[in-house]
Amino acid sequence: MEVKILQNIMESNDIIAQDNKKVFNDKNIFTINLMSSPGSGKTALLEKTFELAGKEIKFGVIEGDVETALDGGRIAKHGVPVIQIRTELFGGACHLDANMVKKAWEAFPAQNDVEILIIENVGNLVCPAGTSLGEDKNVVVLSVTEGEDKPAKYPLIFRLAHVLIINKTDLLPYLDIDIELIKKAALEINPQLIILETSAKTGEGIENWISLLKKWKNEKNSL
Amino acid sequence: MEVKILQNIMESNDIIAQDNKKVFNDKNIFTINLMSSPGSGKTALLEKTFELAGKEIKFGVIEGDVETALDGGRIAKHGVPVIQIRTELFGGACHLDANMVKKAWEAFPAQNDVEILIIENVGNLVCPAGTSLGEDKNVVVLSVTEGEDKPAKYPLIFRLAHVLIINKTDLLPYLDIDIELIKKAALEINPQLIILETSAKTGEGIENWISLLKKWKNEKNSL
Repeated sequence: MEVKILQNIMESNDIIAQDNKKVFNDKNIFTINLMSSPGSGKTALLEKTFELAGKEIKFGVIEGDVETALDGGRIAKHGVPVIQIRTELFGGACHLDANMVKKAWEAFPAQNDVEILIIENVGNLVCPAGTSLGEDKNVVVLSVTEGEDKPAKYPLIFRLAHVLIINKTDLLPYLDIDIELIKKAALEINPQLIILETSAKTGEGIENWISLLKKWKNEKNSL
Repeated sequence: MEVKILQNIMESNDIIAQDNKKVFNDKNIFTINLMSSPGSGKTALLEKTFELAGKEIKFGVIEGDVETALDGGRIAKHGVPVIQIRTELFGGACHLDANMVKKAWEAFPAQNDVEILIIENVGNLVCPAGTSLGEDKNVVVLSVTEGEDKPAKYPLIFRLAHVLIINKTDLLPYLDIDIELIKKAALEINPQLIILETSAKTGEGIENWISLLKKWKNEKNSL
């Protein structure tokens, strides 16, 4: 009996994720599940993205954190519609699930004014991997400060990712870290991975990320 | 029925953790549960500690990772007895539990030659919090690159910590981060927290960490 119940929980996430996907597709909204360790710079990357491309693309954000609404507040300052999920209210979960995203979307302040919806997951390299939210693409952010061994040590999240953003490249001169080794390690896990290098602080490389977002938006609209 | 089963799993961890604690106490081994985000520099901190204090203190290490034995290999190079737990073999868990530590200790290569046992948990700021392994003290490492908001966003792990090591201080000149704000945020969550500042790269501040380890070792021996 117990195994059956657990199985149903997993199945039920996937069913809700499929429902979410249909809801987003019906509105031509391209959706991204943005994942990383704590402190890789996900929110800073979004802030820089909105600063540079907020007039060309209509963004929306679902923010996931265990506690606080700090990140939601940072996004809102850029005039981007945002809703914050605090997973502690769902039992302190270490990742978002499809039902949380469904509930967040139902309460979203600007459903008809979003072209790209970014779902910023809880900072964690283990738990979010493999729990579908209904997203079109999985994007993983890794800070250069985290080291070259992370793809090998946390392979599932890199295997399921479509894009890897290696962030904080402005710190490379001060680290004993070779970005080529990070890329090599990630491609060994996932040869299809698109890899971008960015500094959310200086803006370096953000234009490539924005180009990709525009391409995704256009592909969605042409479906 | 299901709730009862889940409750038993939690209870069973605590029972095994108590057993572990008794085993370590009987041998006068001081034990540390070392936790952090991925890439905060836990293993580098241990390497510097062994380099500077490996002749004065007999260390042992239980290494926890989802996959790979890379960290175990780094520790072994310093001549410190080490055993590696790959949690993928226990179902891909995002943290260690008391039973994994029990099994690792049973297979440990030098049980009678350890004064301080460091259990390096899986890189994760959410999952390890609250799962007792039988340790004497919880130590959390936070890299300065992770930002000032982490104690507020992941409060449980900071609330349960005895010591916070703020690492990678050598990078502070290149960051828009105020270490005093990190300390303030951590003390708001946990006013009893002992806070140390270190750079595992330059060795700055490591002497304070080693002094604390010596104090803990002596306290254990005088019991």
